[in-house]
Amino acid sequence: MGRWEPGARGRLARVALELYAERGFEQTTVEDIAERAGVTERTFFRHFADKREVLFDGSAVLQEHLVDAVAQAPAELAPIDVVGHAFADAATLLEERRDHARTRAAVIAATTALQERELLKMAALASAVTVALRARGVADPAAALAAQAGVSAFSIGFELWVTDPSSADLATRVRETLEQLRAVSVGGPA
Amino acid sequence: MGRWEPGARGRLARVALELYAERGFEQTTVEDIAERAGVTERTFFRHFADKREVLFDGSAVLQEHLVDAVAQAPAELAPIDVVGHAFADAATLLEERRDHARTRAAVIAATTALQERELLKMAALASAVTVALRARGVADPAAALAAQAGVSAFSIGFELWVTDPSSADLATRVRETLEQLRAVSVGGPA
Repeated sequence: MGRWEPGARGRLARVALELYAERGFEQTTVEDIAERAGVTERTFFRHFADKREVLFDGSAVLQEHLVDAVAQAPAELAPIDVVGHAFADAATLLEERRDHARTRAAVIAATTALQERELLKMAALASAVTVALRARGVADPAAALAAQAGVSAFSIGFELWVTDPSSADLATRVRETLEQLRAVSVGGPA
Repeated sequence: MGRWEPGARGRLARVALELYAERGFEQTTVEDIAERAGVTERTFFRHFADKREVLFDGSAVLQEHLVDAVAQAPAELAPIDVVGHAFADAATLLEERRDHARTRAAVIAATTALQERELLKMAALASAVTVALRARGVADPAAALAAQAGVSAFSIGFELWVTDPSSADLATRVRETLEQLRAVSVGGPA
């Protein structure tokens, strides 16, 4: 088997998720994944640092997309609206992969080590968005708070999107959740 | 050495933090910690599941305190104010241990595995507060959003409290940060 493996990365990611869903994350080895994908273990480790990272291959793309959207948002928008715009925009990346997203969310929810990695990736997203907001002239702690509000709205909107059978798309869910956060933050009777 | 080790738990926690700060988390073994604390490794494992958990001994107490404060907040308060009250109240638990908190924060910031565990503990706090808000009749997703806003304000307020040499106490920091979140969420020019 040669070093050049066209499509190996995507195939490894797809096959790993299949196996984690079938057997559980802990019960699946890198050997199992490589075998089903038809590549060597060395090929796996050329693409991914470990068994966890294979589930987080989309994080870098999502982060880049968010940071660009923050940078390019209209100058007159308030920070929270820049963030709402950016997360709703990034949501379109996931829109066509709802089944994949649902399976992935179930696998992550079943394993503490994966929940930890997911939370770390979301914290990294919040940091990247904070930096992008500062670059627009938003002061601290407003930048960190707006970024964190975006991540919360995205996470909670995502949870509704994968669990609720209604047809609302993820971008709409994220926008609605951010509106609700606004209402909650202002206060008033429960 | 007998099974009964008066004060072993607290001593192990204190000594572990000392060693992590001196040598780094990765470079410290359970054997090192047990030796400096004057107990056996078995005693360590009677108290803590692993080398990480020893840094999170206060989480359960913090969570219990928060949940009680949410349950006992005046009935007429809005969810966000219940949360603000609860987190400011819980902040008093940490107030007298600012040096400990500062050392612990530096150790955690230096190690990905510890950041992951910290994020998981904060997510568990958010879940516990969400459940406590639902028990007060707060609907979803308002309960989850208010709880998440509280965790964000607590985390960002905590960060300011450990890094900024000014004398403001943690409870004040948390309250101020939640006020800023309110201002950010309403929007308006940056």
